[in-house]
Amino acid sequence: MIKRLAIIGVGLIGGSLALALKKAGKVGEVVGYSRTKSVREQALSLGIIDRAADNIADAVKDADIIFLAVPMGAMSSVLSDVVPHINTDTIITDGGSAKAQVVEQARQVLADKFSQFVPGHPIAGTEKSGPSAAFAELYQGHRVVLTPVAETNTDALEKVRTMWQSAGAEVFDMAVDQHDVVLAATSHLPHVLAFNLVGMLAQREDCNDVLRYAAGGFKDFSRIASGDPVMWRDICFSNKEAILGLLEQYHQGLNQIEQAIREQDGDSLISVFERAKQARDTRFSE
Amino acid sequence: MIKRLAIIGVGLIGGSLALALKKAGKVGEVVGYSRTKSVREQALSLGIIDRAADNIADAVKDADIIFLAVPMGAMSSVLSDVVPHINTDTIITDGGSAKAQVVEQARQVLADKFSQFVPGHPIAGTEKSGPSAAFAELYQGHRVVLTPVAETNTDALEKVRTMWQSAGAEVFDMAVDQHDVVLAATSHLPHVLAFNLVGMLAQREDCNDVLRYAAGGFKDFSRIASGDPVMWRDICFSNKEAILGLLEQYHQGLNQIEQAIREQDGDSLISVFERAKQARDTRFSE
Repeated sequence: MIKRLAIIGVGLIGGSLALALKKAGKVGEVVGYSRTKSVREQALSLGIIDRAADNIADAVKDADIIFLAVPMGAMSSVLSDVVPHINTDTIITDGGSAKAQVVEQARQVLADKFSQFVPGHPIAGTEKSGPSAAFAELYQGHRVVLTPVAETNTDALEKVRTMWQSAGAEVFDMAVDQHDVVLAATSHLPHVLAFNLVGMLAQREDCNDVLRYAAGGFKDFSRIASGDPVMWRDICFSNKEAILGLLEQYHQGLNQIEQAIREQDGDSLISVFERAKQARDTRFSE
Repeated sequence: MIKRLAIIGVGLIGGSLALALKKAGKVGEVVGYSRTKSVREQALSLGIIDRAADNIADAVKDADIIFLAVPMGAMSSVLSDVVPHINTDTIITDGGSAKAQVVEQARQVLADKFSQFVPGHPIAGTEKSGPSAAFAELYQGHRVVLTPVAETNTDALEKVRTMWQSAGAEVFDMAVDQHDVVLAATSHLPHVLAFNLVGMLAQREDCNDVLRYAAGGFKDFSRIASGDPVMWRDICFSNKEAILGLLEQYHQGLNQIEQAIREQDGDSLISVFERAKQARDTRFSE
């Protein structure tokens, strides 16, 4: 049972955690803060939070757990605003999509309170955002990755684990670097690829025809190009090295396919497609 | 009403057309041929065809309409096998995913009977293939594009249009080149991109982790990497110029994104993502 939970950033991710814990009866009071006044008022009126705070100091005061659900680019400054107001046993955790940068920022900003920080990443979401997109079942059956480091307080880690389990998630621990490369491969790179495809087609003069004849496969593909541009900019910068490394590999793979098409090298093309199909059919399908 | 329909290639595409026309009561007899004996016997036992022919000559004899639903790479040789056995008013149509090459092949092989050929492309399908994947509703509400050329007999064109409408499809006419570039953009390129991504991830040592943490967006994306490798090789070769042109543009777009990430150029990154998101939200979503 969490007596007081502070949610900084009451959108889809933060709001859904609050709703899930309330529904499970695992939280006493939820205090919420968002930079935009109308957003925190909306979260209040939707019953996501019990009290809307006017500033971060007020929001985190006497909280047992503080959940930072803000864009990656805002994480460092929010940590700075939070740190003067926490107690010695307050736990801070986050929902950022890349962990190395957040962990470094927390180490610097929190200094001797760094052990109270539990880096986390709920792997769930929709293309929608804001308090109105939040729902109690978002994390049900989804995975949450925690990436504790040597300094992380074990008791804090277990409390954050229990919190996510109460929200219906399966919780796994991973090393920071492993998390970042796995997420780059399965989420960040695919989003970049989809943004690039849809953006390229949008610039064509025959865009309307392209649209009219787009079949199901393309629609699935393009759906992920609907993510929030600011959030994805932040993710790209936060997980820069892993994403750039994979992009390099991706270019090389495309070059091989291009060459095979140009030279009518059917065997090479089939072996590339076959490898993908086998992996997809045997490993990626559920 | 089609008295006798010959289906060459009784898989998902050919079989579903047969089932749809039978269900609609718009066909008398359906004769089917497939290179593999067990496949045509399966089609017969599933009630997709009324008679399984042992060879193409027997299959197309006295047919009113012949539908070629074979891989693009087999189209030319099947046309050669068909042409000696058709009457002066027999209509030949196809379901190939790229039209310029098929039209050229038909022009050469059919010679003075070329006017009896109506190039077509039903934009529908699933990742499954073979007679067991066929179902009568596949074309319901989907688009079929016909790409008649100057020589195409108008009466033949209208009969093929009526056939597809009877199967539940919306039929549109397009120029051959326009069809090929639109399909390259909305289907062929996305498939190549997905094959490349999934194949690349499959080669990683940490592939199982990648799999375990793959979120919904990635699964949508990877689904289209499950297409038949031989079919996709044929499509890549058949629509080579359009696909290579778009791949070149795609590389350029990725390079811009890479540079923006490397240089932490947030404005450029946001403008690329924003362009894609706007196009997707306003034009591609249904």
